[in-house]
Amino acid sequence: MDKIIITIGRQYGSGGKEIGEKLAKEFGIPFYDKELLTEAAKKSGICKEMFEPHDEKPTNSFLYSLVVGSYASGTTPLNHKLFLAQFETIKEIAEKGSCVILGRCADYALEDNPNTVNVFIHADMETRISRGIEYYGLDAKKAEDIIIKTDKQRSSYYNFYSGKKWAEAESYDLSINSGKLGIDKSVKLIKAFVEMARK
Amino acid sequence: MDKIIITIGRQYGSGGKEIGEKLAKEFGIPFYDKELLTEAAKKSGICKEMFEPHDEKPTNSFLYSLVVGSYASGTTPLNHKLFLAQFETIKEIAEKGSCVILGRCADYALEDNPNTVNVFIHADMETRISRGIEYYGLDAKKAEDIIIKTDKQRSSYYNFYSGKKWAEAESYDLSINSGKLGIDKSVKLIKAFVEMARK
Repeated sequence: MDKIIITIGRQYGSGGKEIGEKLAKEFGIPFYDKELLTEAAKKSGICKEMFEPHDEKPTNSFLYSLVVGSYASGTTPLNHKLFLAQFETIKEIAEKGSCVILGRCADYALEDNPNTVNVFIHADMETRISRGIEYYGLDAKKAEDIIIKTDKQRSSYYNFYSGKKWAEAESYDLSINSGKLGIDKSVKLIKAFVEMARK
Repeated sequence: MDKIIITIGRQYGSGGKEIGEKLAKEFGIPFYDKELLTEAAKKSGICKEMFEPHDEKPTNSFLYSLVVGSYASGTTPLNHKLFLAQFETIKEIAEKGSCVILGRCADYALEDNPNTVNVFIHADMETRISRGIEYYGLDAKKAEDIIIKTDKQRSSYYNFYSGKKWAEAESYDLSINSGKLGIDKSVKLIKAFVEMARK
């Protein structure tokens, strides 16, 4: 039977990670988030710790490096190396078997894979702030700041590398307002989509 | 039991209208598209024929009328009148009972209605061109031209009147790639969403 490959993009605080984890459990398949980075780190030979500050934080230093010519001179900037390492790892993981992959332009890396279902999870700001308070112990103001900043970073990263537009319906097969549906029902709906798309 | 109110935004050629019609049939509730315009025409006293050329064709003449001052001088431009008439009609229809409403910023008109589920249907260009050829008897080039032009009009209309962004995931509760899922399964998925959201 065909593999199940699900990629999940998400707004910060929308519960996208929890949905991805539960979905993976539901299908009995592996879930990749930071684990993916670890694999990429191992493969590329770049120390794992070096991945952390660059993870989904995109273009500034890359653009800067273009300007100062390090790219043109043949040395590939670090965050671009990280992207390429992750890109290859995502492809290899999906080649091996069914999985759920969170963020990191996985939909772009797997765009030639017909089994892939690309999902985007979003929610109204109120729901996301509540989640920030409840799950991450933030106060409301801090939660809102982090939401705005993180989504901006994710958007820049995605738009820069994938050539698609982050959070635009057209970039995904299925986009869900988890604020309206809740976490568990969002999992159920994605499962229904995946099962219907496979028939 | 609570009413079922579903609004559908869609890319041209994505099958959004067919999905809306089938969904309404599935739930046994009325479907509004051009019918809505007729009701609005009747209510506002503006001749029905006058609605047709302005339907979802937005801002140019409205912006022009702002520039030349007809708006400031107290006369409301025609296409703005049409929008307001449709806006009120949508609210009244949703007040009366369950329904599916296609396009026309219905999601915005009903944003205070907690029963509303806002759906967006999109598809890859290839699927949409095929649909243009099959359903509207167009050739491929003509189909592509109409797709691009119509979506531009819908986007301008929606962005101008609703203050939200057309085709952005965040503007809807559920966005589906009908090119991946097909028409009948998209209907099924929306039905599942609506039923889950009501529990």
